[in-house]
Amino acid sequence: MTVVKEKKPWGGRFHETTNKLAEAFTASIQFDRRLYRYDIEGSVAHARMLSRQRIISKKDEKSIVSGLKEILSDMENGRFVFKPEDEDIHMAVEKALIERIGEAGERLHTGRSRNDQVSLDIRLYLRDEIHQIITELDRLKTLLVALAKEKDGTILPGYTHMQKAQPVLLSHYLLSYREMLERDEQRLRECHERVNVMPLGSAALAGTSLPIDRAYVARLLGFPKMSENSMDAVSDRDFVVEFISCASLLMMHLSRFCEDLIIWSTDEFKFVEISDAFTTGSSIMPQKKNPDVAELIRGKTGRIYGNLVALLTVMKGLPMTYNRDMQEDKEPLFDTVDTVKGCLHIFGEMVKHTEFKKERMFESALGGFSTATDVAEYLVMKGIPFREAHGVVGRLVGHCIKNCKDLNSLTLKEFRRFHAGFDKDVYACLQVESAVNAKKSLGGTAKDIVRKRIKAIEGKKK
Amino acid sequence: MTVVKEKKPWGGRFHETTNKLAEAFTASIQFDRRLYRYDIEGSVAHARMLSRQRIISKKDEKSIVSGLKEILSDMENGRFVFKPEDEDIHMAVEKALIERIGEAGERLHTGRSRNDQVSLDIRLYLRDEIHQIITELDRLKTLLVALAKEKDGTILPGYTHMQKAQPVLLSHYLLSYREMLERDEQRLRECHERVNVMPLGSAALAGTSLPIDRAYVARLLGFPKMSENSMDAVSDRDFVVEFISCASLLMMHLSRFCEDLIIWSTDEFKFVEISDAFTTGSSIMPQKKNPDVAELIRGKTGRIYGNLVALLTVMKGLPMTYNRDMQEDKEPLFDTVDTVKGCLHIFGEMVKHTEFKKERMFESALGGFSTATDVAEYLVMKGIPFREAHGVVGRLVGHCIKNCKDLNSLTLKEFRRFHAGFDKDVYACLQVESAVNAKKSLGGTAKDIVRKRIKAIEGKKK
Amino acid sequence: MTVVKEKKPWGGRFHETTNKLAEAFTASIQFDRRLYRYDIEGSVAHARMLSRQRIISKKDEKSIVSGLKEILSDMENGRFVFKPEDEDIHMAVEKALIERIGEAGERLHTGRSRNDQVSLDIRLYLRDEIHQIITELDRLKTLLVALAKEKDGTILPGYTHMQKAQPVLLSHYLLSYREMLERDEQRLRECHERVNVMPLGSAALAGTSLPIDRAYVARLLGFPKMSENSMDAVSDRDFVVEFISCASLLMMHLSRFCEDLIIWSTDEFKFVEISDAFTTGSSIMPQKKNPDVAELIRGKTGRIYGNLVALLTVMKGLPMTYNRDMQEDKEPLFDTVDTVKGCLHIFGEMVKHTEFKKERMFESALGGFSTATDVAEYLVMKGIPFREAHGVVGRLVGHCIKNCKDLNSLTLKEFRRFHAGFDKDVYACLQVESAVNAKKSLGGTAKDIVRKRIKAIEGKKK
Amino acid sequence: MTVVKEKKPWGGRFHETTNKLAEAFTASIQFDRRLYRYDIEGSVAHARMLSRQRIISKKDEKSIVSGLKEILSDMENGRFVFKPEDEDIHMAVEKALIERIGEAGERLHTGRSRNDQVSLDIRLYLRDEIHQIITELDRLKTLLVALAKEKDGTILPGYTHMQKAQPVLLSHYLLSYREMLERDEQRLRECHERVNVMPLGSAALAGTSLPIDRAYVARLLGFPKMSENSMDAVSDRDFVVEFISCASLLMMHLSRFCEDLIIWSTDEFKFVEISDAFTTGSSIMPQKKNPDVAELIRGKTGRIYGNLVALLTVMKGLPMTYNRDMQEDKEPLFDTVDTVKGCLHIFGEMVKHTEFKKERMFESALGGFSTATDVAEYLVMKGIPFREAHGVVGRLVGHCIKNCKDLNSLTLKEFRRFHAGFDKDVYACLQVESAVNAKKSLGGTAKDIVRKRIKAIEGKKK
Repeated sequence: MTVVKEKKPWGGRFHETTNKLAEAFTASIQFDRRLYRYDIEGSVAHARMLSRQRIISKKDEKSIVSGLKEILSDMENGRFVFKPEDEDIHMAVEKALIERIGEAGERLHTGRSRNDQVSLDIRLYLRDEIHQIITELDRLKTLLVALAKEKDGTILPGYTHMQKAQPVLLSHYLLSYREMLERDEQRLRECHERVNVMPLGSAALAGTSLPIDRAYVARLLGFPKMSENSMDAVSDRDFVVEFISCASLLMMHLSRFCEDLIIWSTDEFKFVEISDAFTTGSSIMPQKKNPDVAELIRGKTGRIYGNLVALLTVMKGLPMTYNRDMQEDKEPLFDTVDTVKGCLHIFGEMVKHTEFKKERMFESALGGFSTATDVAEYLVMKGIPFREAHGVVGRLVGHCIKNCKDLNSLTLKEFRRFHAGFDKDVYACLQVESAVNAKKSLGGTAKDIVRKRIKAIEGKKK
Repeated sequence: MTVVKEKKPWGGRFHETTNKLAEAFTASIQFDRRLYRYDIEGSVAHARMLSRQRIISKKDEKSIVSGLKEILSDMENGRFVFKPEDEDIHMAVEKALIERIGEAGERLHTGRSRNDQVSLDIRLYLRDEIHQIITELDRLKTLLVALAKEKDGTILPGYTHMQKAQPVLLSHYLLSYREMLERDEQRLRECHERVNVMPLGSAALAGTSLPIDRAYVARLLGFPKMSENSMDAVSDRDFVVEFISCASLLMMHLSRFCEDLIIWSTDEFKFVEISDAFTTGSSIMPQKKNPDVAELIRGKTGRIYGNLVALLTVMKGLPMTYNRDMQEDKEPLFDTVDTVKGCLHIFGEMVKHTEFKKERMFESALGGFSTATDVAEYLVMKGIPFREAHGVVGRLVGHCIKNCKDLNSLTLKEFRRFHAGFDKDVYACLQVESAVNAKKSLGGTAKDIVRKRIKAIEGKKK
Repeated sequence: MTVVKEKKPWGGRFHETTNKLAEAFTASIQFDRRLYRYDIEGSVAHARMLSRQRIISKKDEKSIVSGLKEILSDMENGRFVFKPEDEDIHMAVEKALIERIGEAGERLHTGRSRNDQVSLDIRLYLRDEIHQIITELDRLKTLLVALAKEKDGTILPGYTHMQKAQPVLLSHYLLSYREMLERDEQRLRECHERVNVMPLGSAALAGTSLPIDRAYVARLLGFPKMSENSMDAVSDRDFVVEFISCASLLMMHLSRFCEDLIIWSTDEFKFVEISDAFTTGSSIMPQKKNPDVAELIRGKTGRIYGNLVALLTVMKGLPMTYNRDMQEDKEPLFDTVDTVKGCLHIFGEMVKHTEFKKERMFESALGGFSTATDVAEYLVMKGIPFREAHGVVGRLVGHCIKNCKDLNSLTLKEFRRFHAGFDKDVYACLQVESAVNAKKSLGGTAKDIVRKRIKAIEGKKK
Repeated sequence: MTVVKEKKPWGGRFHETTNKLAEAFTASIQFDRRLYRYDIEGSVAHARMLSRQRIISKKDEKSIVSGLKEILSDMENGRFVFKPEDEDIHMAVEKALIERIGEAGERLHTGRSRNDQVSLDIRLYLRDEIHQIITELDRLKTLLVALAKEKDGTILPGYTHMQKAQPVLLSHYLLSYREMLERDEQRLRECHERVNVMPLGSAALAGTSLPIDRAYVARLLGFPKMSENSMDAVSDRDFVVEFISCASLLMMHLSRFCEDLIIWSTDEFKFVEISDAFTTGSSIMPQKKNPDVAELIRGKTGRIYGNLVALLTVMKGLPMTYNRDMQEDKEPLFDTVDTVKGCLHIFGEMVKHTEFKKERMFESALGGFSTATDVAEYLVMKGIPFREAHGVVGRLVGHCIKNCKDLNSLTLKEFRRFHAGFDKDVYACLQVESAVNAKKSLGGTAKDIVRKRIKAIEGKKK
């Protein structure tokens, strides 16, 4: 029999060595090395279980565990050299272990496969990262509430179709984004439950004939649940797709917030000024100050959508169970985690360094007939059917536009030319402040309602 | 002032009529008419509340409610004529109501906007549809469990990388898909909670100055929660995106199952035969019998992924709050609902009419050295380190391939040439049945484990 | 042998009839009936060829052709009843033909398969539609050039990062979109060449043993090329994907143009006013006038991206050759064609009905230090290194902002405090008009350059 | 005035330094440094032009060019230290240049902006990479033709719906993929023309007031065309999207080829055996040999689709002109280039190391009634209408299945029981070889036709 030098750990039946190109092409070590901590954590738990079940000796366990910790420490300190021929983080660790502790190391990969091991590693990694993302989300939500309190009473125009619609409180606007982030957090928490499931012991796809104790491993690693079907366990990447779906919605929310800030930073709107520290200039135009951070966050939404499509495509139509295509799950996942964490963090910092221009906002809210709806509702309270009231006010607005007036400047007589139901008190509801504060329906923009909502949010946190 | 004939209900301020092309282009009535039942249900509840709050009279309430019920009945019976100039289902209903009951009808749209109304309609629709999809999911899950029980003991090769890996039970395989569907159901239930939130009363974006009672409307319509921020409420389509994300995962699962069935239907595999009733022939090749249903379900995965991308794209970077782009949410949503329901249903029917070829599966499980891992684990139990055992068996397999033998046909002497640890009892673990039944780890493929899992599933349902 | 009633034309080998659900699920007649004209055109050509090659008689040819024309006429006039049990347009036509002309009709499907037939139909359809889309593109390009001429000399601020950057001509801006559309057209023309390839005669996948003459069919149908490999021909949908890719870029361009128009329609920008005829109002807010058409076009971009992803997903990893998944190509294609044609057309109409507010644009161009770059380039012409000049002007702008001045209002003394190189002539380059007209580099915004470009475009068309 | 230390080159107007987080977040140097060669090439050409136009002195030109070459050489040799505070490759090079040559370096960025510079860099880069990809494509196409010649006469079953359809030549199959790659190449060549356009001199967005000569720069850099509108030039990423669209189709083709190879590698098909050198084993199952390379290529299709969606999303709805979101174009582009080149290359190597199992393929082609269509066409040649002939043969097949026979083993009498038109010569068309060779229609699978096609391909290359 031809003896193959430079044998792979799985190479018993192979007569030829792996082509160098193929080795490099199939290697994942260049990106999955990021999982080293989780890979070793899992292996330590696995070794403890093997020894407890007497599949390996106490002595071997001790030797394995201390070997693994040494490797971990080397990796933490950048002293570990990763090589493409190690294929992936699992093989790199196992190989190093065998080199360091000999035969005991050859006993580590008992009753498991890389198929269940990689699932374990990703789950350990992702449950950590979801925690961190939720922490960032919480920080941002808290910031928005604080800002909402600080900006209490600041009025700006609310828009639909980017046309001035009705005046609203800046606090109300800020809290609307908090609602979105709240849903993002909920979704991430639920996703976390499905991540937090222990797959090890599913082995290649069928389970193992060795007397392992999966529940013990789960306990050691803090998993409340175990996967219930070995074939599903090794071929399941739902939790990664679900996470990237959650991230897509989250980024979509940030993209909208950024769009608003970018528009509000224009010379025409001037509702906000983002600090010099969070903007950059132009290589050619000396006067420029650009909201780059906001633009980049908006742009990075595409990146996350792309990651979602990438993984959904990979998984589509794959036959059961594990297929190598699934190795393509990691880069989109890692990129999504990094992008979302980064964007959440810097977005908060940027908002903190943004000046909200109260006067300019208020002044703008005065334009665009933004209290027209209040006038119609005024007529409704006088008994006029809403649809008729709407028509009356519409014609009033048409009249104002034609004559370059605003509603405030009309005389009562003029009002009455359009409908007899108008009275002096109409002028009250034309005021932007009173219009805002009249919106007392639950969830509305009245100052009282918004303050109550802030209290409710703060109450819940305690 | 120019009087505009053929006025729109919102046309007070307009001096020109809408261009016919623009009218047709912006109309959504051709697809959102599907929401009529929910639109009317919402309007009935809204009218009841308006009257309870004395915003409209009891008499008007009665007149509105009976008018709406008449319209509903006409729509149910196909007697209602929808016209593009009605723009959307909301305007079509309001216009018909005014035509039928006069002034009272003009009072219906008080304290609300199409912005919150359309959100209400979609939420009412989607919570119903999610129930129906969950019902279909449950049916399919139940079918898979029944099939798993029926096929108790049937062995087939389990595959990784489409290469024979280890023998498994068909029941185990079927239950693995049940696990996926179980997660799909969980996700849909959680999504349902976020759908089941009452947005009405958010009005255009700011709430209303009229003394409405949103809680009462929520009670009438059976919503456990209300939206807490009016700006968020009218600009939120998270629940639609989340639903299509869930649907994408669900379809991905079906696509994998279909891929398996298609491959298993090949002349080369012949593991299954789908009934004539669920296959079709060729217009030119007389012998053909094609698994079209399975192929189409697999293909329709693309459709759902496309719907997801469509809506994510629409929402990306939209400024607050409502923008007309959001009208593009409905067609992808409707198509997703129809496709998922249809696929789940027909998939179950097809599986019911599929013959699983037990003998052929078993025969195939004998090949491909599918018990090689068991031999390695056999050596492990004799104290050989797993990595060494793996190497020994790998070389054994290499030897067999070279000499066109299988492991079963080797003499003990031959075994021992590769490792002294082999003994007579090695032949036991070479048997496919014993290999299957040895996989007693939790979630493994051993008959006992699989039966226990079935009991657990059935227990939970009671 | 069981006799199956209600036999399918391909049902010879089948013992059971198709399940009604499966029949409905697999049917495409509800959407592919749109191809009827092309299906019949292809069949007529096929029949002529069969007779010319003496595979069928002259008499049969005549009978087939007149039968097909009768069916065509019935379809054109809405007198043809399509039934789901006809599966698809090909079977519907063949069945109707046999019903009408008997045995001769049974000879039509000789030497072809639905696999090559459907490819032919789509190609005939798509090459027509691409022509129509190019016609719409040309109209829009022509409109933009006409508008560019009409608006000759109108200055507005050019933006980068939505911050005022440098003043530019509106004509220059309009022509920039023309450039994008020009590339769209180029791409579509090239795509058209790949659509315009005759696949018929590839039969199921292998070609046919009958002595057909594909070149003759190609001639009859006006195809300059024939597919060169039968397996490729029946499994190729590249041309559909490519078309939707082109459409995605096109829609992306329109989405950007619409974004600009929407922003320009805000009360804050007020650069344009879209006519009442191409905007709509609000059901609740009487003053609203919304740029719905522009928003919807922007939103429909998502739809086309979704269609692209749908089809790419469908085709990914399909084994050779034809698979039923490919039936999912038609709806995304049809939707893309309709959407793109519709958007191009109405976009042009909307632009025609849009007022560009020259004074407002000019006034806006005066702000934001938009000629700062010109000042830097002024210094460069005096021998100052650009990077230094940039720094000087940057500090000047900082000084102005701090003191609420603009560059124009600085005295020469003040200028010189920042750099000794400044002289009286600096005031000339501060003027917005002179700044615009100084950009004489090829492709720049100077009036002369833009006019020259218009001439070049008009010259090319003749 | 506050003096800001550590000033950015664009920082004249800024009073605060960039936040470190924002600096890191907005930096692109970590990935766009890959463009260094092109950035420097462009700067050299720009400097030569500036001097020719007397905007800078000959001396400065010399100093700049030699400085740039020194920097290039340092970068090539890994001696250049990239820092995040350098932002991007353009600033890194400019800053290094100024450090090395002083004032002359401050003159380089005259009459240009990073907006046109980055477009130039990407275009230079991409036109090179497209050439390399086309080279890889050509290699693979040549390999497929060579293989087609080598395998002359090898018959395998052709499949539709993964069911045996008709026997075809392996050469024909191989050439079908060559057709796809041929279209990929065409598309890439056309895309290349749109990449190969010189944007420099568009400056920030408006062109420049300095007397530059764009045509000269184009000549120096070998561009046949220049961009015609400065606003379009700086906001256009069509060429990147188009390239990734082309790449998506290309990867889709490879994914299909890989799917076939993976299925053909199964124990059930056994049509091919991929060499040990291009497969890998299992960490747990000693017998496994997996087609990992093919699986990974199939999986990487998702990655490219994701990149396409990412960039399309980024560009959707961006206002004119340049926005920072567009920085997100580079990573998807680089990843696409690397992935496509890598996959094309290794795919070819893998195919070279794949054994095609002629006997097994032939044996398989005998099954599945794959010559049934030939029997129907046989009847057609005897004057039977095709639809009738199809029915006859369908029933024949049904009869064979019921009685476990194949068509070959039926007696003439049996044949005649189904149709009187059968004669002895029917047995000829039942033979797989004759069935193949009868498909003489253009593009068909007959040996002659395939050989002719090979000649035509080879002829064209000369």
